[in-house]
Amino acid sequence: METFKEYEYPGPIYPVNPKYEGEEIQGLKVYGSISSLPDDLPIDLGIIAVPAKTTPQIVEELGQKGVLFAHIFSSGYSELGEGGKLLEQQLLEKAKKNHIRILGPNCMGIYNPKGRIGFTHRLPLVSGPVAFVSQSGGNAHRHAFAGIVNGYNFSKIISLGNQIDLDLVDFLNYFRSDPDTKVISMYVENLKRGGNEFVQLLKETTKEKPVIIWKGGKLEAGHNAVQSHTGGLAGNIKLWKSMARQTGVILVNNFKELTEMIKTCLIYNIPKNLGTAIITGGGGPAVELTDECEAYGLKVPRITVKAQKMINEFIPEVNSNLSNPLEFGANGGHVNMIKVMKILDKEPHISSIMITNNPEWYSSAKLNMEEVVKSFANTISPDSNKNIISIYNSSRARKETIDLIHEFYSKTRENGIIVYDSAEAAAKCIYRLWSYGNYLKNRGDKIKTI
Amino acid sequence: METFKEYEYPGPIYPVNPKYEGEEIQGLKVYGSISSLPDDLPIDLGIIAVPAKTTPQIVEELGQKGVLFAHIFSSGYSELGEGGKLLEQQLLEKAKKNHIRILGPNCMGIYNPKGRIGFTHRLPLVSGPVAFVSQSGGNAHRHAFAGIVNGYNFSKIISLGNQIDLDLVDFLNYFRSDPDTKVISMYVENLKRGGNEFVQLLKETTKEKPVIIWKGGKLEAGHNAVQSHTGGLAGNIKLWKSMARQTGVILVNNFKELTEMIKTCLIYNIPKNLGTAIITGGGGPAVELTDECEAYGLKVPRITVKAQKMINEFIPEVNSNLSNPLEFGANGGHVNMIKVMKILDKEPHISSIMITNNPEWYSSAKLNMEEVVKSFANTISPDSNKNIISIYNSSRARKETIDLIHEFYSKTRENGIIVYDSAEAAAKCIYRLWSYGNYLKNRGDKIKTI
Repeated sequence: METFKEYEYPGPIYPVNPKYEGEEIQGLKVYGSISSLPDDLPIDLGIIAVPAKTTPQIVEELGQKGVLFAHIFSSGYSELGEGGKLLEQQLLEKAKKNHIRILGPNCMGIYNPKGRIGFTHRLPLVSGPVAFVSQSGGNAHRHAFAGIVNGYNFSKIISLGNQIDLDLVDFLNYFRSDPDTKVISMYVENLKRGGNEFVQLLKETTKEKPVIIWKGGKLEAGHNAVQSHTGGLAGNIKLWKSMARQTGVILVNNFKELTEMIKTCLIYNIPKNLGTAIITGGGGPAVELTDECEAYGLKVPRITVKAQKMINEFIPEVNSNLSNPLEFGANGGHVNMIKVMKILDKEPHISSIMITNNPEWYSSAKLNMEEVVKSFANTISPDSNKNIISIYNSSRARKETIDLIHEFYSKTRENGIIVYDSAEAAAKCIYRLWSYGNYLKNRGDKIKTI
Repeated sequence: METFKEYEYPGPIYPVNPKYEGEEIQGLKVYGSISSLPDDLPIDLGIIAVPAKTTPQIVEELGQKGVLFAHIFSSGYSELGEGGKLLEQQLLEKAKKNHIRILGPNCMGIYNPKGRIGFTHRLPLVSGPVAFVSQSGGNAHRHAFAGIVNGYNFSKIISLGNQIDLDLVDFLNYFRSDPDTKVISMYVENLKRGGNEFVQLLKETTKEKPVIIWKGGKLEAGHNAVQSHTGGLAGNIKLWKSMARQTGVILVNNFKELTEMIKTCLIYNIPKNLGTAIITGGGGPAVELTDECEAYGLKVPRITVKAQKMINEFIPEVNSNLSNPLEFGANGGHVNMIKVMKILDKEPHISSIMITNNPEWYSSAKLNMEEVVKSFANTISPDSNKNIISIYNSSRARKETIDLIHEFYSKTRENGIIVYDSAEAAAKCIYRLWSYGNYLKNRGDKIKTI
């Protein structure tokens, strides 16, 4: 009730509770029963938050009132075992008989900033290009807020719960043709229908927009955790991997990878190849970044002799590496970096340029962050399709530098540069985006810029 | 020169530079030549920072003066190719002839807080239990400062450079019997001597203290990067993995894993088994933590029925999982957590208890952080050998909460709890510590508490 008020939901809202009949909640008149609700407007959605055992009856009443959808917040169903399964069957029978579709039970429901509905307080009311369908209310909640710090907003977030009726496939189908959604992301524990329909739909969808799936419940104990969470039988992760290969789905392993992959899909061009140029300040970090890139599938090929010679015109060989990884020791100032990046922009076997600038550097070198970041971005010519990748880990931020760090995140983002917290994180994302492009190429579809 | 003054080095220091003969640098008289230095005290160390081609001559002069060690800061040797290799041979000949041992060239040298020597400004002067031997000056520098945020200090850090004389094996040998060193950590790109001696020495050392090795230059491009960095031929990573299995060495993949593994060795008991109990607030996070633990080798077994029943006395089953992963929904307050942890302390097949408390929770629940963290730690009885692991990612800290976050890191540390930024990071460390214990057990040595 509070969130409908907070988000200024424009339609009428009817609280129903026999205990408070005739009183007011949040300034709204409370009705004692569903049958007593006014008939002047059709009711779009019933939200049910009563003990599980009474929910079948409520669904029937809603159906008889002509309500088409119910979101069941209550828990205490198949996630508790056999008794709960029976209750789900009763719910489903009532729903079918009364032509009402069910979201849940055991779920948080819907967050739709455009429609002004949210499942908790203080959610941003700005609509964005990311859809998220989640079989975990906790992850739906977490993602809704993580969008802010990661610089993206949502078209809709759906918390699915036990999926007794509306399920993953229904929402995938919806988001496939939702014009507000550019990237579809999912947290999935198990499928409720046969996989063939899902696979077919995924194939149709990945042609249009990337689909990122985080599969929860991978191995033995993970399967048990899923059983207890949403009452499902978690599918074998090998099957999901094979499904991803067939459909172009981008699989990720955890929440952090999910958010990083979404940013990657939103901001970067699909790379033409795996070639990565690394620019950094010292030999040790150069070796580390190279190792991490290679460990996760990227290539760090030597740049052409022509490019090396051009760089050698302004950077000496001592204490440097001019072949890739590129490290310039004390000669790595921003003026040289910009010159080098312009040279790298012409290298055909390089698609990603990885740099290790950080917020403190701008401050200690007394540089205008906005200008310098923009000049980095401008080294890439409009037709080259290359991406600039920044590596910086802010996990031990100090109070004195935290404003600078936030400025760094926003200035880089505004200029199409993602800051990953490690080369490992960057390499995983770039490799996965390349794989998606490769999938599209092999199936003969045109590669789209997202 | 400035750092010797900054750290108040207690012995005499002689600047040598023919250009400034008779003048003063940092308040010290400058000598025009090595031969003109006073003979009243033996000279322990010569630090050479002149162009590479003049260094053989300087080494000879130092040797003739009776100096036993030289640290060559200069670069421009084998990392540049054949010409540089020749220069290294000349250096080595002069060193042997004149009975002087060389550290480097192409290195930062020594950081020894007790001895008041450091390779850069503002290093902490507090001595601690960690030794670090690094084939990268950049990583030596980075680690010296990372110790502060990670809560440990160093006995010594050695930047090795091109290792033409004193090498990894020499320093491993030294730290093996150094009473100030409890954990030996290394960044290694390549071995300069045959592996047999190293393997033998490692076997002797891991009996006494853990040895953590970060191998840089793992695959193809990484090998090239190593060649350009310290002039070495990076060994195959497979050989290093096999060597680690034979010797009980703990291998890590990058800088972050290195610091996390050091903390783990310093703070935690070697776990008796891989069993991990997970306590968290919701089903989604429970599945994620379980997946990450299993992916990196830990086990998340169901706890005993007896323990489940004891927990069920104060936590209901609805919206909970009482078997492991343990999640209590709205019943997960600190009082219940403490009760549960005491029950888990008696579970023989569990060695690690993973919790997801975070600094904001203490603040929003108006809890005294110091007291609550201490009560968490006190749930583990002195003889149970279990470790409490905390998962919290502070990478998007806000200005308002940063003091709270730093308090959280220090209070947990003081109470023997490590905060990892992900279950993945924790699982890798715990699995590696268990493997080390397992290695020691299989070779019949007593497991030591570090």
